[in-house]
Amino acid sequence: SQEFDFTDNSHRRYNPLTDSWILVSPHRAKRPWLGQQETPAKSTVPEYDEKCFLCPGNKRVTGGANPKYESTYVFQNDFAAVKIDQPALAVQDSGKDTLKDRLIKVQGVRGNCFVICFSPKHNLTIPQMAVKDLFTVISTWQGLYNDLAKQARDDNKPFKYLQIFENKGTAMGCSNLHPHGQAWCLEEIPSEVSQEFKSFDKYKHAHNADLLGDYVKLEMEDRSRIVLENDSFLVIVPYWAVWPFETMIVAKTKTPSIAHFTDKQKEDLASMMKQLTVKYDNLFETSFPYSMGLHQAPLNATGDELNNAWFHMHFYPPLLRSATVRKFLVGFEMLGEPQRDLTAEQAADRLRKLDGVHHYTENL
Amino acid sequence: SQEFDFTDNSHRRYNPLTDSWILVSPHRAKRPWLGQQETPAKSTVPEYDEKCFLCPGNKRVTGGANPKYESTYVFQNDFAAVKIDQPALAVQDSGKDTLKDRLIKVQGVRGNCFVICFSPKHNLTIPQMAVKDLFTVISTWQGLYNDLAKQARDDNKPFKYLQIFENKGTAMGCSNLHPHGQAWCLEEIPSEVSQEFKSFDKYKHAHNADLLGDYVKLEMEDRSRIVLENDSFLVIVPYWAVWPFETMIVAKTKTPSIAHFTDKQKEDLASMMKQLTVKYDNLFETSFPYSMGLHQAPLNATGDELNNAWFHMHFYPPLLRSATVRKFLVGFEMLGEPQRDLTAEQAADRLRKLDGVHHYTENL
Ligand SMILES: O=P(O)(O)O[C@H]1O[C@H](CO)[C@@H](O)[C@H](O)[C@H]1O
Ligand SMILES: O=P(O)(O)O[C@H]1O[C@H](CO)[C@@H](O)[C@H](O)[C@H]1O
Repeated sequence: SQEFDFTDNSHRRYNPLTDSWILVSPHRAKRPWLGQQETPAKSTVPEYDEKCFLCPGNKRVTGGANPKYESTYVFQNDFAAVKIDQPALAVQDSGKDTLKDRLIKVQGVRGNCFVICFSPKHNLTIPQMAVKDLFTVISTWQGLYNDLAKQARDDNKPFKYLQIFENKGTAMGCSNLHPHGQAWCLEEIPSEVSQEFKSFDKYKHAHNADLLGDYVKLEMEDRSRIVLENDSFLVIVPYWAVWPFETMIVAKTKTPSIAHFTDKQKEDLASMMKQLTVKYDNLFETSFPYSMGLHQAPLNATGDELNNAWFHMHFYPPLLRSATVRKFLVGFEMLGEPQRDLTAEQAADRLRKLDGVHHYTENL
Repeated sequence: SQEFDFTDNSHRRYNPLTDSWILVSPHRAKRPWLGQQETPAKSTVPEYDEKCFLCPGNKRVTGGANPKYESTYVFQNDFAAVKIDQPALAVQDSGKDTLKDRLIKVQGVRGNCFVICFSPKHNLTIPQMAVKDLFTVISTWQGLYNDLAKQARDDNKPFKYLQIFENKGTAMGCSNLHPHGQAWCLEEIPSEVSQEFKSFDKYKHAHNADLLGDYVKLEMEDRSRIVLENDSFLVIVPYWAVWPFETMIVAKTKTPSIAHFTDKQKEDLASMMKQLTVKYDNLFETSFPYSMGLHQAPLNATGDELNNAWFHMHFYPPLLRSATVRKFLVGFEMLGEPQRDLTAEQAADRLRKLDGVHHYTENL
């Protein structure tokens, strides 16, 4: 009888971080595309845009003005999803096991949201920035993490988890091209992160080891899903990747959060971020859209939360075949299960083979 | 002290179907929009398009031709994500508790995928179809469900769960405007559905009742989230909705699957589908994009799978403020937790107030 062919036969892979499955249909990459195409990003963006509300010195939507900053710049989000002060929400449970008690569960959520400009230059993106300037971005994240942790400790602020992320490109809902990310700080650990912590905990109880520590070892032996590597980090297409060119940057040794980073780790992360995003841009010769973010220990973590945390970053890019054709996670994916059209190994192989020099810059 | 205001203060709501939380930030609806805009759908589509590979009599991508069908038409997907025949995948566990045994979990997946044309007319959509023709669509789904169940029973085909769905509009990755849906039949219950079954089971053990049965009762008392109602079905914006105008059509009485539908239920479902999608089109005066699908009992279900199943449909539409401005579930949503900008009650209220007559048709 024929052998199962992972590069052609449909299979499901288990994601131990989220405790869920994804469907892999490698032969589907062959189908024709008649649907929506993304508009490729504009190729001539000025270094300074007087209409941009993130450029140095400019007015913001809500009135105030930005300082003439020369490196990174952090400010409170003008349209924050959570706020520090709001009335407390009384416990809703009547104690009588009513239908409402059973089915309507709600918590008030306080916190704060920040915007982090990566550079004063309007027309840069992470792959176009110097490694030393990305080092500064990481230091800025680190500073924010430490500062909010201190405010929680000293001033009793409702800050428990800091979700640092970047939406890049109009395809990822980014409303401003100026290089920037966000950081939302909440009094609760968000669902995705708390699911990872559950998985870390379960894994530790079962194997007396760290899930991501073991996974790093496995990938370093296997090598088929490694895209990049340096002393401190591994860039891999995880075995259970959902998005076509999804990657993870994982610390090689246990590091709970950026607050624990050495300067060497900061340099190494800056270098991985640069090299990975250059490959991304080169893949389809476009300014490659993605959402990316950091997963790490909650602020002021102790006990299991500190011991189980393992710094990593997720990159979720939507493009599938070209600068204009993306993967849609719709219908079956929303109702049934995520589905992908090429294997993680195929994606890693393509990314690995790409040049480390930014070709796209030449076309700008 | 001030009272908590659910229409303004941030809170998290629990989704008992998926066992996860979503963040609600009602004040966010006020922020300005500078990002990507969808291209509104073309307004003059012909009844027959000679280039469409779904129109009656036309050639398909892979060669064959469609019959000159006059009602609905079902055929096997030319680019099926799963196939009936593929080599079996041997169990991968070495039994030695290696890192691979711990972290690399995989299953082969067989099945079959179908396309269901809702109408021979290229330029119709569900809200523009007659209720009697939607009745026929439901009968077609029912026929497929029964037929595949029979093939599984009699011919040992690898068919366990039939996921029926529709992606409508280019914003939802739909590659062809011709009114059609899909049905993917797998030998495993997909993640989303099996998570619902886990929740049904947990709820039954805790309360000796059906989760959706109790939820229907609650919504019928509360009424603030009901959009439409008839003898057999309720259309609600669920308390835990993620997408701005997400809805569920839920059977009022326990009905495991479409195979169990009476003619009256089929008529009532056709009517709800029509009325709901007309409201959707009227909301932003556009052909409203969405992914929708049916959740129901697995094929040939017995025992708990049959007893816990409760027929319902989910509608996941992406639009937020207009025909061209959608909600992006990106950055924070992917890394942290889904977030929405208006409450379920606000969304239900807007949908409820909309006319039941299709205004958009006049603009076509
Ligand atoms: O099968 P279609 O319509 O070509 O494809 C669409 O629906 C599928 C099922 O939801 C998705 O996997 C695809 O990403 C999407 O583009
Ligand atoms: O805050 P922005 O960039 O305006 O908004 C973007 O990112 C947010 C956080 O991921 C999302 O909730 C929004 O839907 C998206 O458009």
